[in-house]
Amino acid sequence: MKTKKIVLPDSELPRQWYNIVADMPNKPLPLLHPGTKQPVTKELMNRIFVEELVNQEMSTERWIDIPEPVQDVYKIWRCTPMARATQLEKALDLPAGIKIYFKNESVSPAGSHKPNSAVAQAYYASKQGLHRMTTETGGGQWGSAMAMAAEMFGLDLRVYMVKVSFNQKPYRKMMMNTWGADVFASPSDTTEVGRAMLAANPDDGGTLGGAISEAVELVMKNEDARYCLGSVLNHVILHQTIIGEEAMRQMEMVGDYPDVVIGCFGGGSNFGGIAFPFLRENLAGRRKTRLIAAEPTCCPKLTRGEFQYDHGDSAGLTPLIPMFTLGHAFHPADIHAGGLRYHGAGSTVSQLLKDGLFEAVDIEQVESLAAGVLFAKTEGIIPAPESTHAIYAAICEARAAQEAGESRTIVFNLSGHGMIDLYAYEQYLSGALKNYVLTDAEIAKTVSVLEKLI
Amino acid sequence: MKTKKIVLPDSELPRQWYNIVADMPNKPLPLLHPGTKQPVTKELMNRIFVEELVNQEMSTERWIDIPEPVQDVYKIWRCTPMARATQLEKALDLPAGIKIYFKNESVSPAGSHKPNSAVAQAYYASKQGLHRMTTETGGGQWGSAMAMAAEMFGLDLRVYMVKVSFNQKPYRKMMMNTWGADVFASPSDTTEVGRAMLAANPDDGGTLGGAISEAVELVMKNEDARYCLGSVLNHVILHQTIIGEEAMRQMEMVGDYPDVVIGCFGGGSNFGGIAFPFLRENLAGRRKTRLIAAEPTCCPKLTRGEFQYDHGDSAGLTPLIPMFTLGHAFHPADIHAGGLRYHGAGSTVSQLLKDGLFEAVDIEQVESLAAGVLFAKTEGIIPAPESTHAIYAAICEARAAQEAGESRTIVFNLSGHGMIDLYAYEQYLSGALKNYVLTDAEIAKTVSVLEKLI
Repeated sequence: MKTKKIVLPDSELPRQWYNIVADMPNKPLPLLHPGTKQPVTKELMNRIFVEELVNQEMSTERWIDIPEPVQDVYKIWRCTPMARATQLEKALDLPAGIKIYFKNESVSPAGSHKPNSAVAQAYYASKQGLHRMTTETGGGQWGSAMAMAAEMFGLDLRVYMVKVSFNQKPYRKMMMNTWGADVFASPSDTTEVGRAMLAANPDDGGTLGGAISEAVELVMKNEDARYCLGSVLNHVILHQTIIGEEAMRQMEMVGDYPDVVIGCFGGGSNFGGIAFPFLRENLAGRRKTRLIAAEPTCCPKLTRGEFQYDHGDSAGLTPLIPMFTLGHAFHPADIHAGGLRYHGAGSTVSQLLKDGLFEAVDIEQVESLAAGVLFAKTEGIIPAPESTHAIYAAICEARAAQEAGESRTIVFNLSGHGMIDLYAYEQYLSGALKNYVLTDAEIAKTVSVLEKLI
Repeated sequence: MKTKKIVLPDSELPRQWYNIVADMPNKPLPLLHPGTKQPVTKELMNRIFVEELVNQEMSTERWIDIPEPVQDVYKIWRCTPMARATQLEKALDLPAGIKIYFKNESVSPAGSHKPNSAVAQAYYASKQGLHRMTTETGGGQWGSAMAMAAEMFGLDLRVYMVKVSFNQKPYRKMMMNTWGADVFASPSDTTEVGRAMLAANPDDGGTLGGAISEAVELVMKNEDARYCLGSVLNHVILHQTIIGEEAMRQMEMVGDYPDVVIGCFGGGSNFGGIAFPFLRENLAGRRKTRLIAAEPTCCPKLTRGEFQYDHGDSAGLTPLIPMFTLGHAFHPADIHAGGLRYHGAGSTVSQLLKDGLFEAVDIEQVESLAAGVLFAKTEGIIPAPESTHAIYAAICEARAAQEAGESRTIVFNLSGHGMIDLYAYEQYLSGALKNYVLTDAEIAKTVSVLEKLI
């Protein structure tokens, strides 16, 4: 009997996250205080974030134990399946030597990879005795994951959701409410930052950077609250490495190993989560896998941004992060892949890109949705708009191998399903969906605000 | 390491469906021609349905092989996980001897158990050389499953969706469209039956019975089209027994066996799917498991209906089926569990209920949604409104065992997730949700139209 899904038994689930910092040839540059421009202190970071997460953010240990209560919750949906996309391969009429596998993170209760970090963050917050958390969300995948995790560990959660997505995806708000979280469209009138944004432009559809500013402002005004972030930072990517660790064991189970690993790219946690374990093998000289980050053409920080210190949020409240960025005031087009609408990349992934240790490609909205429909019609699963970028990149890799007459084993991460994003598909099917390509002048303008600190 | 999810490897997946008819002490009464009141001929059935499905409908073979192409598609999401609801047990503060497991059918690409039959039906249709299929759908779970399956086997599909659900669940239509199906709200103006319903009441929210009438009318007018049904009939329940067959092997894997098995009940395919394999063990005297069907209080065919011949559709186009029924003109309240809004139960399940071989309970909408929220907050997964009926029944069983000071192993089928049904949760959380209880006089009136043929 042919095997389709590859799943690890609970007893073989990874019990440690992998910290790429331990193996980086050039370590990431430190975060800087936004005022003094000096490296941030643990004290400042602890004021914003949960302490254990700050420890992990600054850790250089290679392996970090996954606490047992976190493992217990992971087991609700993990190990996530690795599957051979046989029906997709057939539709593409690929020669036998070209194989496409996908790691299916869409099976989590929140529908994406995001709970991998949300559960860990909620656990550490509750362990620290905290009760109030704030966060932001773009497409809503992170916010819903954090709502679920917060409820499981008895925390109150307030979510600022980018208004574009809040309007496009009303069901995400209902999801978060069902898990007990309070949700506000950002810009909102509940913070100074939000009110200023609304005063400048009452129709402001919001950005992830703006939503972060609102969530952080709330924490700075409430001693007992902490902020949590769903991507960009090292500790978030750390938690997501469970994806790649499982994926590597699953490929071993079928005696295969990827030539190419692909993840869509917003802040870096999904991409880093699937790619870093394979990058470790590259760095150790044991294996050679090409790693590809797929970003949207309308938000091309990796392919066209600058490597420079920049704020993580639009209002400049967060520490300065060394990142590939389009500038923190950059306002991407209102594409449906809300989770990829972020101006910068995390410090670790940025350093690795600068060092040429992975590749980046940019993909247009219409093409990505077309790949999503093809995937839905062949493999059955309707992918999140974010994930369709990885699918399109995987198809391009398959086609390139075919043209070159080469064999190639391709693995991509299906970061989430699109059940809550069906409006994107409706728009695609009706022909209303648009592509957005930035001119060089537009990019030059948005990055011109960056101070040259590197 | 504690085990949470129990999953069979692909190599141990069941390769046969189980046909309960072979083991029934009293066989189901035959379907009757709606005009002559004589047992229907295979010829008439073949005019409406796919031939191989008619063969299965009338088969008395105990085991029916699952064709390999169907097995291949099953493997996209099967084996579905069996999981111990440890967090729910903890929230209920149950003693150690009371265990709740759930079989998780929500992990299919369409989000429910429905693809188990849809894939088989689409396969047999394509094998017969057909290209056009019609069907109906209530909450949309069946329609979306059939849309996915039809696309995979190259069939055109037209779906009549009950208007109440069409309006409550707009995302389901988008799902079906993404998979390439055409969807119409029923009553529609595309059929004579639909136009008559609209003429009688322009605001008619529709019923499953009415949607079936529309779909069947279309087939009767188009020689090359066939109709497919998502529940009620023997062959549909047959395909769903993959659930119970897996469940039994999964329980064996952890050395446990259920005292109680619970499924929500619309037409009987979800309930029969999980319950019939365990019923086989009961009938053979090897084991003793209580089997409980959970239906909504507003549509109580099992607990308060009559066992009599009735039409499967509201217009009287289908054969007469021996069923527990509220009468084919019965119009249930507009509850969110659209898949449970059907006036009758299939002939097999009806005969089994008449023979006292399983139990039925009725559950109110508000209580069921409350159980759904508790499940979401503990186990993470937001259940379909239909499935919340099974959860509530499982909680009642646990409480009853606790009061009696007994041990009890409870298994329920989580038939689907509620990502597309979040409006139900929003209404529940806002306090807008209502219960609907029928008076005896109301039921006496709706069943009074039934001819006494039994």
